[in-house]
Amino acid sequence: MNVNYTELIEKLKGTSVTKPLSGTLSGHAAGEPFDKHVYSEMKKQLPAHTFRQYEYLNDLYSNNPEIIGHGARQALFNSPTVLFLLSRGKNATDKWSIENPFDEKQNDTADILVVKDDFYEIIDIKTRNLSKSAQPPNIISAYKLAQVCAKMLDNKEFDNFTINYFEIDWELSNDRLVCKDAHFVSLYKSNPMSLYINWAAAMQIQFHVCDLEQTFEGNMEEWAKRYLKHFVTQAKKRANDMITKFVKPFEKYIEQKDA
Amino acid sequence: MNVNYTELIEKLKGTSVTKPLSGTLSGHAAGEPFDKHVYSEMKKQLPAHTFRQYEYLNDLYSNNPEIIGHGARQALFNSPTVLFLLSRGKNATDKWSIENPFDEKQNDTADILVVKDDFYEIIDIKTRNLSKSAQPPNIISAYKLAQVCAKMLDNKEFDNFTINYFEIDWELSNDRLVCKDAHFVSLYKSNPMSLYINWAAAMQIQFHVCDLEQTFEGNMEEWAKRYLKHFVTQAKKRANDMITKFVKPFEKYIEQKDA
Repeated sequence: MNVNYTELIEKLKGTSVTKPLSGTLSGHAAGEPFDKHVYSEMKKQLPAHTFRQYEYLNDLYSNNPEIIGHGARQALFNSPTVLFLLSRGKNATDKWSIENPFDEKQNDTADILVVKDDFYEIIDIKTRNLSKSAQPPNIISAYKLAQVCAKMLDNKEFDNFTINYFEIDWELSNDRLVCKDAHFVSLYKSNPMSLYINWAAAMQIQFHVCDLEQTFEGNMEEWAKRYLKHFVTQAKKRANDMITKFVKPFEKYIEQKDA
Repeated sequence: MNVNYTELIEKLKGTSVTKPLSGTLSGHAAGEPFDKHVYSEMKKQLPAHTFRQYEYLNDLYSNNPEIIGHGARQALFNSPTVLFLLSRGKNATDKWSIENPFDEKQNDTADILVVKDDFYEIIDIKTRNLSKSAQPPNIISAYKLAQVCAKMLDNKEFDNFTINYFEIDWELSNDRLVCKDAHFVSLYKSNPMSLYINWAAAMQIQFHVCDLEQTFEGNMEEWAKRYLKHFVTQAKKRANDMITKFVKPFEKYIEQKDA
């Protein structure tokens, strides 16, 4: 990893951003100014290597103006896994041009991307209002992560990228949002078996960054295999639970002659 | 049904509300002023019988001050199905008092309740920005509706309530939201087999009110049985689809010795 998170946390603690104008201080709206604040602090550490995801794609395609169309632009990534995590859809990539670049997109994988020496550090920023006890936020689709792990194993890509989460804990004070604390975790250092999948909430893995243990001692190949085992086990369990909860209790009401 | 929806639609067409202050005109924020507007128009038709769901509960419990606690307050409903649809949880109902009444709650079943001659008309208001093509909105949890149907059949309640949806189609014009059209449908007049269940989106049934057909000719008992058959079939299908999509493709990556 290239970002110095310990230094970043120290720099951010005690800093503040202006409260967003929109009335409520719920998740997304409140988080945005901090997201930009973290980005600018990170960029101070690694100015030439820190990007927004859309910025990185715009730079990559702009620097290769002779490469046109989805297929050819896909080949610009030297990693199928990173390609899967970062690229936009076929239609959007076909339409890309210097005059029609990508804009920020809410469900991009990365809030911030640090790319150095062919290593991709994918960073997602989560913000937390300390005065509310909120549900753990959506982290990443459990299915998308399963696809990532399958690609890692298919292509033997175990050391060219990582996925990190950074949490800012803030409090409202005199119309400003003040950063009281910050936390950093690496997805691939957590125990894959402990990841909670909320199947009803678009299959999202959910956790508070500050609560994620970092006890996994294996390498990324082992992580990918363990995660896939966990995902498959949980998918089977969910399918069984659906029969128990949504089929069995209602079968007695269904007239057999209708069947 | 007691509300005259045809008259209501005619009255609402061409009327407008002030644009909400919060910047974006996305679903919830934009809809709210219209929700209140529809409520006040409906109340003109049936002033003594039109309520907000929380208002109705506050009135019911206030008029029976000697009835205290969740169990006793539940008994105030003469219908187990309506009770299931409208009452709040045990904890909230235990805590209710004249000094501590219920407030509006976003996931209440009804936006508006018309109660007359022991018949409950449960009305949910949906608003639609005509200048955007949006996904069909969440209507009701498919599981909650299955529980409603089971209660209807258990208690033979087929003529004491209905669930209706009312859609306002609006456009922004000179900083006001103008109602261009409005639509009304009755859930129990739609073909239960045609209801789309989005399992990943919290099992919500989703449709645009203006698109829901009203072709069902049977009675509510038949509707409840047909819906439960549909729900059970769809739940089984989803459980199978989960195995096909989330288990099978990943099994090859799981080492057998780990099993």
